Amino acid sequence: MNYKEWVRGELEGLSRSVGFRYIPREELDNRLTRLRTAMEGKGIDAFLVVQKMDCYYLSGTTQDSMLYVSLDGKPLLMVRREVERARVESRLDDIVKIRSIRDLPSLIRDHSGMLPRNLGLELDVLPVRDYFKYQDLFKDATLIDASPIIRDIRKIKSPFEIDLIRVAGDIGRKAYEEGRKILKQGMTEIEFAGHMETAAKVFGHEGLIRVRSLNYEAYTWHVLSGYTGGIVSQSDSPMGGLGLSPAFPVGASLKVMKAHEPILVDFGTCYHGYLADETRMFSIGKMPAKFTDAYNACKEIHDTVLEETRPGADCEALFHMTLRLAKKLGYGDSYLGPPGLQTRFIGHGIGLELNEFPFLAQGQSYSLEEGMTFAVEPKIVFPGEGSAGIENTVVVTRDGCEILTLLEQEIFEV
Amino acid sequence: MNYKEWVRGELEGLSRSVGFRYIPREELDNRLTRLRTAMEGKGIDAFLVVQKMDCYYLSGTTQDSMLYVSLDGKPLLMVRREVERARVESRLDDIVKIRSIRDLPSLIRDHSGMLPRNLGLELDVLPVRDYFKYQDLFKDATLIDASPIIRDIRKIKSPFEIDLIRVAGDIGRKAYEEGRKILKQGMTEIEFAGHMETAAKVFGHEGLIRVRSLNYEAYTWHVLSGYTGGIVSQSDSPMGGLGLSPAFPVGASLKVMKAHEPILVDFGTCYHGYLADETRMFSIGKMPAKFTDAYNACKEIHDTVLEETRPGADCEALFHMTLRLAKKLGYGDSYLGPPGLQTRFIGHGIGLELNEFPFLAQGQSYSLEEGMTFAVEPKIVFPGEGSAGIENTVVVTRDGCEILTLLEQEIFEV
Repeated sequence: MNYKEWVRGELEGLSRSVGFRYIPREELDNRLTRLRTAMEGKGIDAFLVVQKMDCYYLSGTTQDSMLYVSLDGKPLLMVRREVERARVESRLDDIVKIRSIRDLPSLIRDHSGMLPRNLGLELDVLPVRDYFKYQDLFKDATLIDASPIIRDIRKIKSPFEIDLIRVAGDIGRKAYEEGRKILKQGMTEIEFAGHMETAAKVFGHEGLIRVRSLNYEAYTWHVLSGYTGGIVSQSDSPMGGLGLSPAFPVGASLKVMKAHEPILVDFGTCYHGYLADETRMFSIGKMPAKFTDAYNACKEIHDTVLEETRPGADCEALFHMTLRLAKKLGYGDSYLGPPGLQTRFIGHGIGLELNEFPFLAQGQSYSLEEGMTFAVEPKIVFPGEGSAGIENTVVVTRDGCEILTLLEQEIFEV
Repeated sequence: MNYKEWVRGELEGLSRSVGFRYIPREELDNRLTRLRTAMEGKGIDAFLVVQKMDCYYLSGTTQDSMLYVSLDGKPLLMVRREVERARVESRLDDIVKIRSIRDLPSLIRDHSGMLPRNLGLELDVLPVRDYFKYQDLFKDATLIDASPIIRDIRKIKSPFEIDLIRVAGDIGRKAYEEGRKILKQGMTEIEFAGHMETAAKVFGHEGLIRVRSLNYEAYTWHVLSGYTGGIVSQSDSPMGGLGLSPAFPVGASLKVMKAHEPILVDFGTCYHGYLADETRMFSIGKMPAKFTDAYNACKEIHDTVLEETRPGADCEALFHMTLRLAKKLGYGDSYLGPPGLQTRFIGHGIGLELNEFPFLAQGQSYSLEEGMTFAVEPKIVFPGEGSAGIENTVVVTRDGCEILTLLEQEIFEV
């Protein structure tokens, strides 16, 4: 069978039959319009988008591609490998094959009639070696960091995006319900996490939790029981867990879970690229009072943040409010980590990546806006003993917020 | 409880009790000696290692760190977050906390008595924005791309490393055996993949398959059945599969697996950071003759590559030999992908990352050396119908090679 003809004739129908949702043209047009307005404001003539999630956001495909967006004219999607599939997945008009990066200038000239005088690039993630290549290929252009612009555009979610996060949250809810059924004494953390993750995947969880960073790796299987909940690690998180080896010293480990231990489950899920993040406490039998008390304090902090979440609320002020409240509740030394290792955020923006704007954090003084989505995660850590916490993903609405991770807010004792 | 004291007193014992193996000092010393010889050869005075796997390779920890290696003097590990844990994990002597990247020059001056005249950096992955910061901090130094050096050092594996890959391969073997037990008609690809992955995790599989790249994401759950095995995607692989959405259009999908379909399972595993990669065919009931024939051709190509694998064999020549053999066997148009989309490699080096040297590929004319590890993966693709293939991970020995993924080389019909 001819491959191209098969893809053109069959792929869309077959993929939709197993749940694929493609980003509508109108959605892409809105995003591109907002991007161009921001580019104009910063004096950027053209933007060569190369990072996978930025490219997906603006084109609808994650095939190996680069997207050229100029102030006027249609965007040009250049695909390295599978251009026929990109044409099925993306609702953009101009999709061409690129065989070598050396062909970039000629493809752009053919498309736009000219080369840009300046060119935006995602300098927060673009490797230096690639940057040197672009300098060579666009000798007469000034290269500019356009990553602040695309990150700024992406921080406000459309109803289409919010719906995908809601589905991701619902997948998480089902996984936690499954967790409640399968948790048993004698299971290792990673076995429990694995079964929960498989349950999530059956409902469409994509397995990857993407982060915009060279070295920071996120993952779904963050199950910490007893003392592993009191261990800090590489990530900027109140507790990292023991993990499986020095090569991956975070998340679930081969430690066996016992009765009456606090079991913290921070379980991110991904649907059509969109992430939801949530944390709940489990225990086998009754959880010790020290940890139910700590959980209740986290719940109070969580609820207070959500009460104060609305357009105009200041992100840094929300963070500092939680510090004061944690201290008042008697957890000044254990809130957000052990002394000296306490993190300086209570919430992080979430969407296609886990570290989007806004950050409810120290030094992040700006206002919440309608359509922002973030995870709020107060946590309390006792070294050598364990941790407690709660987390939900919310969207800022016109006059408050809505929780997108609708699982029960209680301790899951089994 | 005091966190620092707890980590110092308890962490090593507890982590060893659940299987942690720390990289021995002697191993680190050997690696650092080889690195320094290569640096000297290239005229590099000092190397600031920031990429996580390079840092792990040379220090033994993946805590959020930077490692400074000069030609003489001890290496200096600077840890951003959890320095106590890094001190447990790393056998290096000089491990300090770094609060801000601005402190780099003073920490280096305190340690070595001077700043370097030139400084190696991993420019193949380092983001441009970070590069500008280093330019600012080391105004008098020339910044040099040291990534070819570290990649070159890492391509030869020590017995310690080979043993970890062997364990990863054995975890894979157990997962395939579990797969044989659980595969059932009516399961979706992702459900089957999820169960196999949980089985692997119980034996220590770490869940991440690392790749040295901005955009290329690898994963374990590559289960393709029937038509999904004939779909190409973003990755430079003969077949990508359907995946779960346009945001992750590779690997297992929500397609239900049927009887008499070829089911290709390419299932990478990770143990202590080290990867093993293997592919086997499954089928529910008898597999159609077209695919058993294609499998047998792949097996013949695989066996021929392994027969010719020894120190001194040329990587590109091995690749071209397989093209000739595939053509002779009647698979010229379907070998390594559909016409026009055929990949140009038959093997890839494997270790801490999936894309290490050597590459048995077009344009990669250099000799195999003892201690190199690579995966060899002949595959045949029929668009609209499915694919067949086999893959094993091997190490080059003094006079041949040894397979590190010791599962049965047969079609798993259930």
